[in-house]
Amino acid sequence: LASDRSHWALNYTTLLFIIRVVEFPKITLVGVGLLGGSIGLAVKRRGLAGYVAGLVRREESIAECTKAGVVDTATLDPAEAVDDAALIILCTQVGQMGELAEQLKPHLADGAIVTDVGSVKANVVAMVESMLPRFVGSHPLAGSEKTGVANARADLLEDALCAVTPTERSDRAAVESVEKFWQSLGARTARLSPEAHDLVVARTSHLPHVLATALVRCVLGGAENGEADFCATGFRDSTRLADGAAPMWRDIAMANPKAIVAALDDLQEELDGLRTALEVEDAEALEQFFDEGRRLRSGWLKGRE
Amino acid sequence: LASDRSHWALNYTTLLFIIRVVEFPKITLVGVGLLGGSIGLAVKRRGLAGYVAGLVRREESIAECTKAGVVDTATLDPAEAVDDAALIILCTQVGQMGELAEQLKPHLADGAIVTDVGSVKANVVAMVESMLPRFVGSHPLAGSEKTGVANARADLLEDALCAVTPTERSDRAAVESVEKFWQSLGARTARLSPEAHDLVVARTSHLPHVLATALVRCVLGGAENGEADFCATGFRDSTRLADGAAPMWRDIAMANPKAIVAALDDLQEELDGLRTALEVEDAEALEQFFDEGRRLRSGWLKGRE
Repeated sequence: LASDRSHWALNYTTLLFIIRVVEFPKITLVGVGLLGGSIGLAVKRRGLAGYVAGLVRREESIAECTKAGVVDTATLDPAEAVDDAALIILCTQVGQMGELAEQLKPHLADGAIVTDVGSVKANVVAMVESMLPRFVGSHPLAGSEKTGVANARADLLEDALCAVTPTERSDRAAVESVEKFWQSLGARTARLSPEAHDLVVARTSHLPHVLATALVRCVLGGAENGEADFCATGFRDSTRLADGAAPMWRDIAMANPKAIVAALDDLQEELDGLRTALEVEDAEALEQFFDEGRRLRSGWLKGRE
Repeated sequence: LASDRSHWALNYTTLLFIIRVVEFPKITLVGVGLLGGSIGLAVKRRGLAGYVAGLVRREESIAECTKAGVVDTATLDPAEAVDDAALIILCTQVGQMGELAEQLKPHLADGAIVTDVGSVKANVVAMVESMLPRFVGSHPLAGSEKTGVANARADLLEDALCAVTPTERSDRAAVESVEKFWQSLGARTARLSPEAHDLVVARTSHLPHVLATALVRCVLGGAENGEADFCATGFRDSTRLADGAAPMWRDIAMANPKAIVAALDDLQEELDGLRTALEVEDAEALEQFFDEGRRLRSGWLKGRE
């Protein structure tokens, strides 16, 4: 009987351990906007945490967060927010991560895991992991044109890709824990280095953004008249990304300048090839230019289905 | 009484003349796809012509056109199509206009006015007006992602901008007649030279198209892996224009190469400024870059409301 009991006790401990791998007694969201709020909703819906706390910067946000039902409590006090939290998710803008990490560091519980949702990684990871040993960078590729906690959706991360960017210094258990966390929210995870991440998103996200802005400035910013009247729905759609908040994009650009310049170099090759084909009026090269673009894009769209 | 009759007869002639300014006994659409079909529907709906004929290239198109109700009759025979037509609208691709004009020339009625809907003008106008004295170039900025006569809509041209591009050689009465025709369909007209038109659309339409294609090729065409997985909705929307038919865009590029190169030069200035700001990590310049782009675009959107 004694041996049976100890056997049971062992299993119970194992069970508790397993539960704790995917479930956190307390999760803290630092910054509760569209993404933070959506994570909170999904965590609560899926029962992944005993308690969800939110750290906000404005008094009014406390009521907004609780009204939206995305956190159990929200506070302006960093110490209170992260007290006893097993997982802290930094959901603020890229430019604020370093300062935040410094502010939170003295209040973190032993063994607390910290991750973030920033869209640039090398810069953020280097800064934050030097302060917080159990920090693992993340970047869930989920968003919406609508912003703010009022637009939070429990399914925002479902089927989304989430990059997880460990370094040689990363705590292996923390990396796995963070990956499992995102997977528990329905996201697919991709593990890659912060530098590889930044090179990829410089092309897939930052380049389309800066190009949309450059296009708007080129077409609408000149002294010429009449252009505005000739811009139609094609122009509207292809420049939608230029509508992003300038301070946010300034921070992203400042956090990833080299990779964006490298992406601009790649684009330059395409533009130079196009220019030559136009200058020598090479019909075949021009058709190939358009045809390959169309094929690449439709192949990509098919792959997403 | 005799004097009364002659007075009435004069007024009747005047009336007939006025009617003939906006109404055409017979209008011929050369090429009956989305745009040609939509013009046909609108003309019939608004009673602007006694008769609408369509010239098509494929036997099956005859049934499609009449089934869609966009023409009264459709034919494969150019002579039959334009016989007695007071207005002929070329609704085919830019690359085919010259050949078409040559083919139709011997069959045109005396005084027949010819216009087109091509998205490039200098090249087309120079070629066609040397053959057809009463030709006036037009470019209605109306379209849809859906193509083909089955998607024709009577309201496609309502509130659309339609460029009309006369030259020094143009017949003044024909120019006014063409402008009134587009206005009768609910479009706004803008009169400008073919060259000025091509410079404007090179920036507002052709540049966004070639950029979307260049972006797709740059991001998805490399040997690197992983990019496709990281492309999200922002990339999808900003590259939608790359989905255009390659032979059509080859013809547009071949018809307007110098203006597109000039537009690429303007864009290059923006990209060079951005590159410098990234290289020296100038936060203020970067914020200004994004901020001005956003303001220009939202000002443009407001102007469209």
